[in-house]
Amino acid sequence: MLDPALEPAVRKRFGSSKFAQWMGLTLVTLGEGTSEVRLDLEPHHFNPGGIVHGGVIATLLDGCIGLALRTELGMDKDHVTTNLSVQYISAMRSGALTGRGRAVRVGDRVSHGEAELTSDQGRLVAKGSATFLVIPARRRDEQPLGGDG
Amino acid sequence: MLDPALEPAVRKRFGSSKFAQWMGLTLVTLGEGTSEVRLDLEPHHFNPGGIVHGGVIATLLDGCIGLALRTELGMDKDHVTTNLSVQYISAMRSGALTGRGRAVRVGDRVSHGEAELTSDQGRLVAKGSATFLVIPARRRDEQPLGGDG
Amino acid sequence: MLDPALEPAVRKRFGSSKFAQWMGLTLVTLGEGTSEVRLDLEPHHFNPGGIVHGGVIATLLDGCIGLALRTELGMDKDHVTTNLSVQYISAMRSGALTGRGRAVRVGDRVSHGEAELTSDQGRLVAKGSATFLVIPARRRDEQPLGGDG
Amino acid sequence: MLDPALEPAVRKRFGSSKFAQWMGLTLVTLGEGTSEVRLDLEPHHFNPGGIVHGGVIATLLDGCIGLALRTELGMDKDHVTTNLSVQYISAMRSGALTGRGRAVRVGDRVSHGEAELTSDQGRLVAKGSATFLVIPARRRDEQPLGGDG
Repeated sequence: MLDPALEPAVRKRFGSSKFAQWMGLTLVTLGEGTSEVRLDLEPHHFNPGGIVHGGVIATLLDGCIGLALRTELGMDKDHVTTNLSVQYISAMRSGALTGRGRAVRVGDRVSHGEAELTSDQGRLVAKGSATFLVIPARRRDEQPLGGDG
Repeated sequence: MLDPALEPAVRKRFGSSKFAQWMGLTLVTLGEGTSEVRLDLEPHHFNPGGIVHGGVIATLLDGCIGLALRTELGMDKDHVTTNLSVQYISAMRSGALTGRGRAVRVGDRVSHGEAELTSDQGRLVAKGSATFLVIPARRRDEQPLGGDG
Repeated sequence: MLDPALEPAVRKRFGSSKFAQWMGLTLVTLGEGTSEVRLDLEPHHFNPGGIVHGGVIATLLDGCIGLALRTELGMDKDHVTTNLSVQYISAMRSGALTGRGRAVRVGDRVSHGEAELTSDQGRLVAKGSATFLVIPARRRDEQPLGGDG
Repeated sequence: MLDPALEPAVRKRFGSSKFAQWMGLTLVTLGEGTSEVRLDLEPHHFNPGGIVHGGVIATLLDGCIGLALRTELGMDKDHVTTNLSVQYISAMRSGALTGRGRAVRVGDRVSHGEAELTSDQGRLVAKGSATFLVIPARRRDEQPLGGDG
């Protein structure tokens, strides 16, 4: 079970994210090593072909994996994405996407997670995996690696 | 050299993209199998840790690879991303990102491309590769795969 | 349930594979969209640091994903890998690896699968995903794409 | 230029690799952040469809990227693969493969590299990228991550 003190801290951090607000992400649930994030699709999320942009899908995958790992890493450690891999499985033309992230292995130096995105009808839209370097939270400012949390 | 009739068509398509406008992407140059796309970073592109969100980086990589392939595929074919792989190499905290995409191999059914992102100071921020299914443009509406172009 | 006529055909094809014999792969079980492949580790599977070579792990992942998809594609279609992505999760220094493959989505043109490798003690060693182009079996000779099945 | 003392050490380590001998890999050249590895294809490298197995290609990519990084990391550090991503671009049915690896960024904790495989006729067969955790060489025995070097 998720540490009861952790959930408000993670939600506060998520709520402070200008990126999450701009993207339209809603943090639905957090569990121990899991997360659920929702995105109601708006016209600006689609490419000229009328399907959700691959970058939006990558963003939602990366975001919910990062949150799932955060539930196990706590707030004293930080994690930056080193790798993201996405499989695009079916196209979305409207509606909402739900991303479910899962921590696969949380280590002192490296952590792995994965996620899948589904439509409200339960159709599988994409799967992804991501790997993160784990660092002490205070060292984030010195950190030369890209990513997010 | 890029077909002179193609560049205006690609630019028109890009200009019509609500996604590109919302994201803040500028199409700088197109060549034969190459593209250059710029993103001036704004506060909403950053995660709570103060570095550019991994999803923004994935988006720029996917976008400039898609454009690079478009210069070889023309407007009669369409391409949807089946896979995207990202290496996050160094963190960005401010400034602008330039993505340079390149077509690696353009085939009748599958095409591969790659891209790298650099800061204005020439620092390498991320690399990525993407694979696309190639389909006749008119069949896009029937297309069950996700992606963008 | 797996088509009863298909299992012998897949096993015969696997049994004819010089690669599988040389690598030391054993096909344990086949289900509908699933496979289980075992590798008893031998000294030549390890790198100079004493851990299983990353290429051996990639091979086992690719192999069991290909088999899982074969159970759904049948023998009239063929599939060639277009992309493989591997997460290396924990090191193996001895023993045996079991790979469990799963078809994620089987389509007419593109199929996606995934797999995980575990030790006999149930420790997770690696995860991977692969994407395949689906082609009529008779066209394999004309096929310009790499991969295996 | 490559440290003259390093090349014999890397070649000695490579020469001691039972895996490299079994696979049939030849270390051709080492540069500063680069490597060239050759594989003369034998019947056991092919899948039942007559094309080089995807695992062989992944192995060669991983191997030459690892060597390219080794030329920059030296012998006092070790590196284990955390991620490998492969694009399969064209099929090989006979001949030899040459893998050229390149260090993209060498860091204290994480390093990134990439490689491409070509036929003797210069045809591009595959591209790949890999990410590695960097660790002190003496700690390799304590290391829970998979990979090779």
